[in-house]
Amino acid sequence: MNFQLIHTESKSKARAGKFITDHGVFETPMFMPVGTIGTVKTLSPEELSRHGAQIILSNTYHLYLKPGMDVLREFGGLHNFNNWHGPILTDSGGFQIYSLDQLRTIREEGVEFKSHWDGSTHFFTPEKVVDIQRIIGSDIMMVLDQCIPNPSDFAEAEKAHQLTLNWAERSRKYFLNSQPLYGSAQFQFGIAQGGIYADLRKASIDGLLNLEFDGYAIGGLAVGESAEHRWQITDLCTELLPKNKLRYLMGVGKPEDILAAIELGVDIFDCVIPTRNARNGSVYTASGAINLKNAQFINDKNPIETDCPCFACKNFSKGYLRHMFNVNEIFGLRLATIHNIYFYLALLKRARAAIIQNNFRGFKDKFLAAYSAE
Amino acid sequence: MNFQLIHTESKSKARAGKFITDHGVFETPMFMPVGTIGTVKTLSPEELSRHGAQIILSNTYHLYLKPGMDVLREFGGLHNFNNWHGPILTDSGGFQIYSLDQLRTIREEGVEFKSHWDGSTHFFTPEKVVDIQRIIGSDIMMVLDQCIPNPSDFAEAEKAHQLTLNWAERSRKYFLNSQPLYGSAQFQFGIAQGGIYADLRKASIDGLLNLEFDGYAIGGLAVGESAEHRWQITDLCTELLPKNKLRYLMGVGKPEDILAAIELGVDIFDCVIPTRNARNGSVYTASGAINLKNAQFINDKNPIETDCPCFACKNFSKGYLRHMFNVNEIFGLRLATIHNIYFYLALLKRARAAIIQNNFRGFKDKFLAAYSAE
Repeated sequence: MNFQLIHTESKSKARAGKFITDHGVFETPMFMPVGTIGTVKTLSPEELSRHGAQIILSNTYHLYLKPGMDVLREFGGLHNFNNWHGPILTDSGGFQIYSLDQLRTIREEGVEFKSHWDGSTHFFTPEKVVDIQRIIGSDIMMVLDQCIPNPSDFAEAEKAHQLTLNWAERSRKYFLNSQPLYGSAQFQFGIAQGGIYADLRKASIDGLLNLEFDGYAIGGLAVGESAEHRWQITDLCTELLPKNKLRYLMGVGKPEDILAAIELGVDIFDCVIPTRNARNGSVYTASGAINLKNAQFINDKNPIETDCPCFACKNFSKGYLRHMFNVNEIFGLRLATIHNIYFYLALLKRARAAIIQNNFRGFKDKFLAAYSAE
Repeated sequence: MNFQLIHTESKSKARAGKFITDHGVFETPMFMPVGTIGTVKTLSPEELSRHGAQIILSNTYHLYLKPGMDVLREFGGLHNFNNWHGPILTDSGGFQIYSLDQLRTIREEGVEFKSHWDGSTHFFTPEKVVDIQRIIGSDIMMVLDQCIPNPSDFAEAEKAHQLTLNWAERSRKYFLNSQPLYGSAQFQFGIAQGGIYADLRKASIDGLLNLEFDGYAIGGLAVGESAEHRWQITDLCTELLPKNKLRYLMGVGKPEDILAAIELGVDIFDCVIPTRNARNGSVYTASGAINLKNAQFINDKNPIETDCPCFACKNFSKGYLRHMFNVNEIFGLRLATIHNIYFYLALLKRARAAIIQNNFRGFKDKFLAAYSAE
């Protein structure tokens, strides 16, 4: 088994585990920093490791366009290209294509889309997306799915769920009849869709379970639904998913959302929020996010957080960070990114320790009492 | 004596020495990476140290405008603000103000200029520039001077030289009657002007020597003159300058120019070329500069230079660097900057070793035989 469930909390569904890949082990619950085009923006692989990253996420759609498949094949995959030698998960491109909106056409066979770089036309099928991820050499690959905005009406959600399931079947079959290109094992995760409709989510997961994926993702959330719907559906999905497989809630989220999902039994997360917000000057503290561009920090000699051991807080003041944002110095973007990545990964590490001590809810309540959500 | 001359080569005027400040010692010949507004763009202080930096240069004009004097005073100077605890040299702002062109008016009392940020009007006098650099707390401060383009006619050059000398006298007097603010010793260097006119250069240096500065800079070169004029004037200046004081050729330059100037007896250098060019994808190799954006590197698995021990070359290929420039990933800017800084500092380190072995010309000829100058 690639996933080892170490402990499930007695008072909630929160779980601690670890997932074993040929590029190393990551502990769960875990947050995956997003390295869209191969790089977690501004950071070196060693800065990621040093601040707690155990796995990164990269985007199939983006890597397919740049640097492209020929380059990644030539280099022997993404690990050799970007020099991150830990586990990598790649999404399928489904969400990016969904985001292209007017630039794509979805049909049973696959999805046609136009590159956001140059407008050139491309066609992804479930099979092609497996091939692409074989070339990328990611440790965990996601199937091609159709993501729809929330709320969508039942008929639309049902159609997208059915297409996603058909694609999952083709993906799984194709995956099982193909091999990794670089000698390292690859795992394939299915993605549950079905919008905010419990019946559809149940049908989606039933269908996926028949295909016996290596892990399961909950897709189609954090795309417009209410918080109530989000957690209802997450709760339902984790009830239906098997205990012995990894659970991934795609694209979530803010610190408070991640804690809510952990309590419902989710294991891994990705989101651009901590890195993107950092580049806008917004950094996390135990009492909430602050913006380094704010004039109140002009003479502030304290680090972002006094007791934070990250490279930014160990060496630089809010005053200097504010100055760097004020003069557009990109070293400031790096420091803010480092801090936010560390904040997320330290939060999940503490969450894991709390789970093992059967005190996740106590930990979460204490965190949220001090923390002002955005 | 703050400057210790260790060795002058037997076959040329090239010298090896060291300069001692309260923030540490730097060896000469030495190149100073440029940290315009406090940061050597994209780099941390530890990356600078690790790649050979012993002193950085920062710009008085820029620091005066942002973060401004109140902030720097509040932080106890630039070292505490940017966390670079090695020696810092600050220019006087004279060159930046010269570059502002239509935005400034020079008169005997000082120079009025408009901020390039917001158009606000400011007035620098020689005395004010000393005060500003006391607040910055740089280890070496430069006097306010008037830089003119080359070629300028004799009358214009004479006028600028005379104004510079008058200002130098006011600067020196004011400096000697003021004290450092933060307990660390500060040195003040005079700047020789006089354009391409030997008589003016001689008068300039004679005047400066009477003021007994802690070191001397050759200004007003690398501003449009022919290479022949540049090296004639440099040669003349180093003949006239005392052997026991540091000599600084301002704003020079390309690797081949730095070697030419070392041979003529110059000790320290600054230039934005290695860092600015890096951010445009241009990086140095033993055979000349290459541009990482070039499509020829798309599949190149080799580092910028195979035997280079810098962080970029130890970890990343030209193919990955090209990709990062191609997708505007700013980690690529950092890696290119690291490489160029290392290239410059390693070149000067090797030059110093060659001087001590009385083989500077042999070293220089060998370097230039392999190196295609831009």
